[in-house]
Amino acid sequence: MKDSYKIAVVHGDGIGPEVARAAVAVLQAGVQTGTLQFVEYPAGATHFLETGDSFPATSFEGCRGADAILHGAAGIPGVVHPDGTEAGLDFTLSLRFKLDLYANVRPIRLYKGVPSPLGHPGSIDYVIVRENSEGLYAARGAGALLREEVAVDTLVQTRKGIERIVRFAFDLARSRNGSPKDGRRRVTCCDKANVLRTYAFFRSVFDEVAKDYPDIEAEHVLVDAMTVHLVNKPSHFDVIVTENMFGDIISDLGAATVGGMGMSPSEEVGDGIGFFQASHGSAPDIAGKGLANPYGTILAAILMLRRLDRRYRDDRLRLGADRMEAAVCAGLEDAALRTRDIGGNATTSQVVDALLKLL
Amino acid sequence: MKDSYKIAVVHGDGIGPEVARAAVAVLQAGVQTGTLQFVEYPAGATHFLETGDSFPATSFEGCRGADAILHGAAGIPGVVHPDGTEAGLDFTLSLRFKLDLYANVRPIRLYKGVPSPLGHPGSIDYVIVRENSEGLYAARGAGALLREEVAVDTLVQTRKGIERIVRFAFDLARSRNGSPKDGRRRVTCCDKANVLRTYAFFRSVFDEVAKDYPDIEAEHVLVDAMTVHLVNKPSHFDVIVTENMFGDIISDLGAATVGGMGMSPSEEVGDGIGFFQASHGSAPDIAGKGLANPYGTILAAILMLRRLDRRYRDDRLRLGADRMEAAVCAGLEDAALRTRDIGGNATTSQVVDALLKLL
Ligand SMILES: CC(C)[C@H](C(=O)O)[C@@H](O)C(=O)O
Ligand SMILES: CC(C)[C@H](C(=O)O)[C@@H](O)C(=O)O
Repeated sequence: MKDSYKIAVVHGDGIGPEVARAAVAVLQAGVQTGTLQFVEYPAGATHFLETGDSFPATSFEGCRGADAILHGAAGIPGVVHPDGTEAGLDFTLSLRFKLDLYANVRPIRLYKGVPSPLGHPGSIDYVIVRENSEGLYAARGAGALLREEVAVDTLVQTRKGIERIVRFAFDLARSRNGSPKDGRRRVTCCDKANVLRTYAFFRSVFDEVAKDYPDIEAEHVLVDAMTVHLVNKPSHFDVIVTENMFGDIISDLGAATVGGMGMSPSEEVGDGIGFFQASHGSAPDIAGKGLANPYGTILAAILMLRRLDRRYRDDRLRLGADRMEAAVCAGLEDAALRTRDIGGNATTSQVVDALLKLL
Repeated sequence: MKDSYKIAVVHGDGIGPEVARAAVAVLQAGVQTGTLQFVEYPAGATHFLETGDSFPATSFEGCRGADAILHGAAGIPGVVHPDGTEAGLDFTLSLRFKLDLYANVRPIRLYKGVPSPLGHPGSIDYVIVRENSEGLYAARGAGALLREEVAVDTLVQTRKGIERIVRFAFDLARSRNGSPKDGRRRVTCCDKANVLRTYAFFRSVFDEVAKDYPDIEAEHVLVDAMTVHLVNKPSHFDVIVTENMFGDIISDLGAATVGGMGMSPSEEVGDGIGFFQASHGSAPDIAGKGLANPYGTILAAILMLRRLDRRYRDDRLRLGADRMEAAVCAGLEDAALRTRDIGGNATTSQVVDALLKLL
């Protein structure tokens, strides 16, 4: 354990500042005073418009020197680079690559009180482990556009990259709390091995690593079929491991089944520092209206405390996380404390005030 | 119009023969005798196991010389090429590329009587137009695996390829029957333009083409967000156009919301011949048990008749399609004529016998 932990806070764009502030307030109330030190750094599309720089070097150094990074959300549609990609996303995407945050962990859990669009959701509680450092994403900024006639991007997977993410997924399956699915822990490899060599390679490395975990069931599901299962039998899943782009897609689908992007936290970790945010975007259409759902970012803050505790063994972090989670559960069970996106009328600050009272 | 139309029938593997025979029987009863000539050709994983050839040249010539191709389903898991991809899929994938079937059209429609996993599905009736000749799929068999350490596939998009699929989608939106969505026709471009150059290029060509269709609303949705919308507001969509892999993924999700893969037909067309099948796979686990849902392949046969009628203007085809569709609707409304996958107990042959009686 450390005396205190430095949390780099980056507000970003749209509703980013609102949800980031909400999470910081809840952290301050939930975790013993003095445990966390918050330092704010600028980045995002708004900062890009103001300064021409979407992610200043000083912000990067500040983030890199922190124990964890907490992010609101970034991006303004139309604020783009010459190749058409979004400038506001430089922060998230370059952090991933510069800090080698290779594991993107997205718990999909249906909390009591939150409406699901599924008719019979059953119990939903699985984790998507998205490979976060390879695949098509590694080609960002490197693809070619020839004579405005042909565009090319490259999908690359390495044995090292696949091995470490698959091990991460199996280790996570072993450590998950609660009773195993159907009496057994399970890791599902989601790929498109029937068509492409890169995905077939992903699957073959998955199969090799799985042999080291005989206590855990290993199975394969093609990505297209996976979308069907996530809608028809979400309760089946425990841990799902998949490559970068597929993880992007199916984690949004998973989030949709448990109340939407506002209910879905995201953790990006490497071998050291972690980066935490809600999975949702900056939602410029509702920014500044008090309508943003802060639960996703608060759930991300809980993931942050648990990750720090796993690394530094510190009861203040563990107790803070447990307290915050209890408050979130109580909040969600109370119809008056649900925001519009999850079927209620509460404003962001009504939710935050109530959670602070609960803590 | 022609005197008669040659339909190449390829049974394939698993439940493929059962659903293909079902569709042929219904076509024979629904369309005036003498209009269609059926000729069977072998292809698929079973044929590969027997002969070492998954798609014989004679079958290809037979298909190429036909007016349309009707397919059951193909593939046996584990019957793979040295690079790990599936041999049974050679038929579908090489037809796409050899005949330049660039448009994969997948209507997503919730029929009366069919249960949806969504709590409030509303009316679901949109079409996914999947680009079928480029993207990562064009790299199949061409990717590299270096020293068992790095695997690479290439995503390529051409202006010509994007332009023709986007025009196809807008033309389809113009021609769709029934009342427009929210009073207006709409084409949605589904991409990941915020991150990758290839998708940003797809979107920019979409925007150019859209200018030629001022009567039709054009909008963009990122592929990850699209999965959320297809679950939360499927009624919003009219025609969705997207690149190859994204089309593969979201069309399965769409199918899931309207009763599953067994309810989802697929049409693949170029400038000439068309290729028709259900979107489902060969489901080896239920093959030979009489449990296969034949509706998807029958719906594909209806798409086939309508495509041929559009090309050759032949009332026998149009009337046959209308009759068959009426029979399908009547069948689905009758609980006794639903197969297990859509909440009933009917066997394949009970469904077929009843449809034949209705015709
Ligand atoms: C904002 C964007 C770059 C990002 C991604 O595509 O990874 C987002 O969709 C996510 O899932 O984290
Ligand atoms: C069987 C497979 C090659 C195919 C694809 O990936 O295109 C299938 O999933 C589909 O959607 O037609």
